[in-house]
Amino acid sequence: MSMFWSDTARNISPYIPGEQPRDRKYIKLNTNENPYPPSPKVLEAITRETCGDLRLYPDPEASSVKNAVSDYYRIHPDEVFVGNGSDEVLALCFPAFFNRGDMISFPEITYSFYPVFANLFGVCYQAVPLNEDFTVNLDEFPAHAKGILIANPNAPTGIAAGLDEIENFLKKNRDKLIIIDEAYVDFGAESAVPLIEDYENLLIIQTFSKSRALAGLRIGFALGNVNLIEALNRVKNSFNSYTVDRIAQAAAVAAIKDKDYFNEICGKIIRTRETTAHKLVSLGFKVLPSSANFLFVSHDKISGGELFLKLKADGILVRHFDTKGIENFIRISVGTDEEMDILVERLACYINGG
Amino acid sequence: MSMFWSDTARNISPYIPGEQPRDRKYIKLNTNENPYPPSPKVLEAITRETCGDLRLYPDPEASSVKNAVSDYYRIHPDEVFVGNGSDEVLALCFPAFFNRGDMISFPEITYSFYPVFANLFGVCYQAVPLNEDFTVNLDEFPAHAKGILIANPNAPTGIAAGLDEIENFLKKNRDKLIIIDEAYVDFGAESAVPLIEDYENLLIIQTFSKSRALAGLRIGFALGNVNLIEALNRVKNSFNSYTVDRIAQAAAVAAIKDKDYFNEICGKIIRTRETTAHKLVSLGFKVLPSSANFLFVSHDKISGGELFLKLKADGILVRHFDTKGIENFIRISVGTDEEMDILVERLACYINGG
Repeated sequence: MSMFWSDTARNISPYIPGEQPRDRKYIKLNTNENPYPPSPKVLEAITRETCGDLRLYPDPEASSVKNAVSDYYRIHPDEVFVGNGSDEVLALCFPAFFNRGDMISFPEITYSFYPVFANLFGVCYQAVPLNEDFTVNLDEFPAHAKGILIANPNAPTGIAAGLDEIENFLKKNRDKLIIIDEAYVDFGAESAVPLIEDYENLLIIQTFSKSRALAGLRIGFALGNVNLIEALNRVKNSFNSYTVDRIAQAAAVAAIKDKDYFNEICGKIIRTRETTAHKLVSLGFKVLPSSANFLFVSHDKISGGELFLKLKADGILVRHFDTKGIENFIRISVGTDEEMDILVERLACYINGG
Repeated sequence: MSMFWSDTARNISPYIPGEQPRDRKYIKLNTNENPYPPSPKVLEAITRETCGDLRLYPDPEASSVKNAVSDYYRIHPDEVFVGNGSDEVLALCFPAFFNRGDMISFPEITYSFYPVFANLFGVCYQAVPLNEDFTVNLDEFPAHAKGILIANPNAPTGIAAGLDEIENFLKKNRDKLIIIDEAYVDFGAESAVPLIEDYENLLIIQTFSKSRALAGLRIGFALGNVNLIEALNRVKNSFNSYTVDRIAQAAAVAAIKDKDYFNEICGKIIRTRETTAHKLVSLGFKVLPSSANFLFVSHDKISGGELFLKLKADGILVRHFDTKGIENFIRISVGTDEEMDILVERLACYINGG
């Protein structure tokens, strides 16, 4: 620490992303990346852009991405905000919509970056326990919260709320900003995008990192009423004019336009997830019903911490959270069929003794 | 505006970057981009990275960039922080080193993003007038400022302070954080990097956007004492884990390693700047002594605003600031010799009547 640190720098506990070890080659099922490469059209677009004007600043508005996203969802480009990954978009929501001391609420078990953002920007938060079946309890968010942030599907459980539930929730909370983090929505949940025309209190966050296999290029976006998007633009343009680089913009446009490839890889991941889930259930695992590209599982015979360590020793990385209520679970990103076969084979060994 | 906007969203005045019009083809001398493309080795590195694992998250620490930068400057990698353009690095300095209500000070005429950052993060600022010759007045910064931020060379004047001056200033202000924005340093000013070992109060910000011709890819960095860098890391990791994408990281490494290309294009730009400056002086322009890749010039016969409009009508974009004290100037980015010849020819026409 140094005399120059702010109170913020002293007091925050930074988010710790899933490990990216380079000591050996792992089957990497720990950060919910896509097991398939991005669309070949993305690679072509990058090659074209590389021959272009990298010496010039990118379009600060990322208009081409806004237009492509708005075409895809049949909404207006002014209802789209683009950022440097959905983490940046989420982070910018805090200064855009919350004063210091305002309260935001989110589930107790969810993406663990949410309380980190709140602490960074001096926003208070109340974390609401999940129901016993690990679903999000939409009735228990505090009345005095200025906003509510839910991941749908939730992480790390993978469980999604239905569109009717979400709409009822928006209807009952028109005085609150409802932010829905749909990072994993393309793997089987229903997006709330059709509701943005009717609910001025709805902001949806999505990402190119998961279903479009572009975690390496950092593109996220928000969808909502033009007023909400304008607040995000104002804050972003007071922080960093050019957050999304030229190559990322070109890649994002190509990725969202290639619907066939997107449908193909999402379909494959969903099928692999279901096959794997069935096998794990046969081995005696409790497997939460996932609408995401990961499975959240536990077993009576072996603790989550032990499973994590055994798998790591066997060259398979999964994620374990040492958090009350889920300490016995591991979160397994859905890989290729071949990767999941190896995983299941190892897990069978641990369970049946091997 | 909407009921959901924070006070911050309501009250800030976002930074307005130089225009990027697409209505016609301009000679673009308005945002200090490099007239030359990035090194061919950068393009090769991008091509290699594109064939790599774009589906996977980048290294959140950008270690390869840190290592390459620390090799270049012969400092320790832990003395390097990497961000999504130097604007992001500058922005993160505010929550890392200043509490709300703390005071930062910078020159009155300088990069106009500085007061925008301060307003976003609730940091007070005092802007200190330049000397009459447009140099930064290092003796007039307020004693009660917690930190001082100067661009060296300064923008939009292009005037640099010498290393002795900077060292004296650091010595006299050991209780204050001194942030030196060296975005333009490679065009003829002296970097303060050799001083970071002796001055724990020194933080230097640099960018790949100017001298390394990578404005399109968004890479900036900070150099300083490990304690200062750690504060930046803590804040960054509470805001966005992965700010610099895979392709930008690969490009940055290749760019900083290709010293020959860097020296070649910086040399060309400096020569073009000096030739152009002499021609403008012959036309009766006042030309401030520039150590940057731009010239800041005025003429008794035509106002800055008029020059800006005439040039724009003739297809040449420069930057005009409607700011007290410099309203009669235009800032001209140094382009290729051919571009500068056209510029000078047009200016000669306006001056001599044509």
